[in-house]
Amino acid sequence: MSTTPLPSWRPGAARDAILGFLDDLDHVPVEERVAYVDNDGTMWCEKPTYVQLDFFVDALRTRVADDPRLGERPEFAAVLAGDMAAIGEIGLAQVAGALTALFDGHTPDEFATAVDSFLDRYRHPTLGTALAGVIYQPMLELLDELRARDFTVGIVTGGGTEFVRQVSTRCYGVEPGMVVGTLIGYAFARDDDGRPVVRRTTSQLGSANEGGAKVEHIQSQIGRPPILAVGNSGGDREMLEWAQASRHGGLAVLVDHDDAEREFAYRSMAVSIAEDESITAVAERLGWVVVSMKDDWDTVFAPG
Amino acid sequence: MSTTPLPSWRPGAARDAILGFLDDLDHVPVEERVAYVDNDGTMWCEKPTYVQLDFFVDALRTRVADDPRLGERPEFAAVLAGDMAAIGEIGLAQVAGALTALFDGHTPDEFATAVDSFLDRYRHPTLGTALAGVIYQPMLELLDELRARDFTVGIVTGGGTEFVRQVSTRCYGVEPGMVVGTLIGYAFARDDDGRPVVRRTTSQLGSANEGGAKVEHIQSQIGRPPILAVGNSGGDREMLEWAQASRHGGLAVLVDHDDAEREFAYRSMAVSIAEDESITAVAERLGWVVVSMKDDWDTVFAPG
Repeated sequence: MSTTPLPSWRPGAARDAILGFLDDLDHVPVEERVAYVDNDGTMWCEKPTYVQLDFFVDALRTRVADDPRLGERPEFAAVLAGDMAAIGEIGLAQVAGALTALFDGHTPDEFATAVDSFLDRYRHPTLGTALAGVIYQPMLELLDELRARDFTVGIVTGGGTEFVRQVSTRCYGVEPGMVVGTLIGYAFARDDDGRPVVRRTTSQLGSANEGGAKVEHIQSQIGRPPILAVGNSGGDREMLEWAQASRHGGLAVLVDHDDAEREFAYRSMAVSIAEDESITAVAERLGWVVVSMKDDWDTVFAPG
Repeated sequence: MSTTPLPSWRPGAARDAILGFLDDLDHVPVEERVAYVDNDGTMWCEKPTYVQLDFFVDALRTRVADDPRLGERPEFAAVLAGDMAAIGEIGLAQVAGALTALFDGHTPDEFATAVDSFLDRYRHPTLGTALAGVIYQPMLELLDELRARDFTVGIVTGGGTEFVRQVSTRCYGVEPGMVVGTLIGYAFARDDDGRPVVRRTTSQLGSANEGGAKVEHIQSQIGRPPILAVGNSGGDREMLEWAQASRHGGLAVLVDHDDAEREFAYRSMAVSIAEDESITAVAERLGWVVVSMKDDWDTVFAPG
């Protein structure tokens, strides 16, 4: 039936907990119905590599085709060779910075066009699907269900804000201002005719958007705390705890990657207060809703 | 007639230019109908002092009543005495930092409650009106007209983001995430029971939101360029030029404070590329719409 909520979710404790929460919101004013959802591993597949990394590597290959000497730079040589040991030796932050700097001086429009062009061409390296086919169908349905209940939905990502804004606009129906990610700085300038122009810089603005920083940046940029949050990794822990601590009684939802057959099976570690433990163990200890991709999702990926 | 647009605006070139622009938007997709409006001196009266400064001074007085020694601190003694020479000697940034630090460690809810309490009690020092009576009625009508034409409206302010969010929510119908101002940093922490909490710090996040920084911060936080912007001071210049340079052909609107009788008459200086000139002179040179408060507004303030 088309009127069944969350049609790709199998009946069970996870679906019941989410719908039970959504059915009991009469006491929450519409302006406080706010949900934040992580992107990599929560809205779409993050294995074997982050799609954003694929984008930067693709851009690097194009540049190196034009200017082969660029490929000799140690950071880029390591990336092009997929040499994880060399990347580790150089330092992931330095490599990421070098990749980000490929777009130094670009306008927001130029960067958006580059991302869109990549997303149009995208194929997942092992699944072979186009962009839509790496997005989790049950999560798209959850976003629809949230909106049907007057939620404002934001995407909160460790990835670059601008990259994810392009994805969120075309794939999730989330407007650019509701994406909170790691921010690049911009510089206002004038072109030769004195006309104003805004360009990307190479400076990261604030800290990487992971862990407690997700909470801090949501507060700064959106100014509205969540009553529901969904994530999948240790970097989402603080955001999920924040949602759960809502004065309205919030819901924290963790997507557990336990489906080696249809997706990938892996566990993210979270540094808890007292000890190292997996984020799934944290979720069980704190009473979050744990979504088993294997058991709770009838369909994993959206139709390609 | 209730169906006349902008009823508090007198017929004339400014009103014609604005309505003419709004009547010719068929070529602009709804998602690109974005307008940014300055707050102090554009949405409400900024004389004789910024309302936000009044808020901080009010908070300082309350604190000093509890702890008189606090008033002996040089920054606070100068503020309480209204001693502009002493404030200048100490440095405005240092004084502002000391006032901001009065709320160090406060949660967003605690700060919002303090602002709301102040706004409830507010009286303009010379006009004698309550909060609503310092807001420009013609600007409220312009926001309504923009929304009627499917615009997304943001408030872009040199003031503190959180202070203006309280004002924008209750007075302008603009949600917190569409306010771009000077940002205070937040820190994620846990209370004694391990529950997550987010608290204000004393660190400013990024640069003060004036001039080119307004453009940079809009791009970072909202990610959507304007096709219309309204301002009143040199600090709005770059934002207005950015709107005017829209690929759709944008509109820049400057509110000129030329009404000594009903409001205050003053000119803001703008540092242009070549020379110092008033922002009104810049507006005329660049072909902006200049709104004379004296001639173009039939009513200045909203009913109190």
